[in-house]
Amino acid sequence: MNKHDAAVVFDLDGTLVDSVYQHVMAWHEALRKSNIDLSIWRIHRRIGMSGGLLVRALARELGYELDAATLERLQRDHETAYRERSKTVVPLPGAIELLATLSREGVAWAIATSAPRRFTESSLAALNVPDAVPVVTHDEVAHAKPNPDLFLAAARALEVPTEQTFVVGDSLWDILAARRAGTLGVGLLSGGYGHAELVESGAYRVYEDPADLLANLHELGLRVPRDP
Amino acid sequence: MNKHDAAVVFDLDGTLVDSVYQHVMAWHEALRKSNIDLSIWRIHRRIGMSGGLLVRALARELGYELDAATLERLQRDHETAYRERSKTVVPLPGAIELLATLSREGVAWAIATSAPRRFTESSLAALNVPDAVPVVTHDEVAHAKPNPDLFLAAARALEVPTEQTFVVGDSLWDILAARRAGTLGVGLLSGGYGHAELVESGAYRVYEDPADLLANLHELGLRVPRDP
Repeated sequence: MNKHDAAVVFDLDGTLVDSVYQHVMAWHEALRKSNIDLSIWRIHRRIGMSGGLLVRALARELGYELDAATLERLQRDHETAYRERSKTVVPLPGAIELLATLSREGVAWAIATSAPRRFTESSLAALNVPDAVPVVTHDEVAHAKPNPDLFLAAARALEVPTEQTFVVGDSLWDILAARRAGTLGVGLLSGGYGHAELVESGAYRVYEDPADLLANLHELGLRVPRDP
Repeated sequence: MNKHDAAVVFDLDGTLVDSVYQHVMAWHEALRKSNIDLSIWRIHRRIGMSGGLLVRALARELGYELDAATLERLQRDHETAYRERSKTVVPLPGAIELLATLSREGVAWAIATSAPRRFTESSLAALNVPDAVPVVTHDEVAHAKPNPDLFLAAARALEVPTEQTFVVGDSLWDILAARRAGTLGVGLLSGGYGHAELVESGAYRVYEDPADLLANLHELGLRVPRDP
């Protein structure tokens, strides 16, 4: 790849696979199990953060602190509840075609997710992600989104200056982390946020889902090296 | 009640009880069972419509027609899938207090929902809705939201001119139906729509949830007849 070409860093849940609502309901189940009563829309609005930040943020909304044992139990219960639901998770429309198109056209891309690596395996397989594609998870960085670490690490793995990458994500935390990393965040509605929420957080462009992004890829002006 | 006082008509799901996401996942399960693959965020954005309109609207997004037998089966499968999930449905924060406050202060209120009556019973019980309160469901009107029929029927039941009612709802379809009925729609974020989506659809005011509305009830200038 030409070092001056733009590259693309994708979030995973809600951006490439249709898994946000399963995560929401899994957190709801975990919280209920610990007798923590929190409205589901508030959980939805926190998805995309690291699990640790999410439970701390939710606890703050409740107005009380959660001890370390509770935080750990919540994350374990979320994992169990999500695994049960993960069989209903499929690639979003256009996701497989979008990734294959970028590969074919020589545009470098990577995946950067706030989830731990063990959560990503079935999604990566469903998306036909080649082994050579960098996949940065919470396991590789100290701080997940909305910190910029994941996107900075993905750009390093792609050997592209960070400012030459587009970040594609469905949540506020993707767009905010993209801005902190000094990249342009492209929002997708497929995680259930409204268009204006993504624009207000600083999204450069907003598309419905991977299929809509694929149909409008020229708007990002991605240079495709026809004569290498 | 003084005939010149304002009254309030509440939507039920997502407005008074935390049930939108359970409905979303129940529709997702029903659609999957019929091998209809539809992104979950698109289902979410249709909740609040009548079930019949919802499946027809979703089918249109898929680009093909569904026959009558499939439409009926989908609604039956949704009902079964929702019943399983309904044990996790609780009143939204502040809902019980908000309704009790209106009753105590002599502000007339009603409930108007696109759902069939048999879906509403456990929610009404959980909310302590008195028997005297009008509850208009899809069973009583020809067309549910976004048609204005439900809100017109609720105003009639309250014996208040429609334009003297506030409609409180969480979905675009509530706000659009409120405008068609000639009332002011008050949006709540508790169904998972973004603030701007509700404002763009014409919401007069937007609050987070029933607790936030209760804390700001004076903003609606509801006349409380202290000396009747």
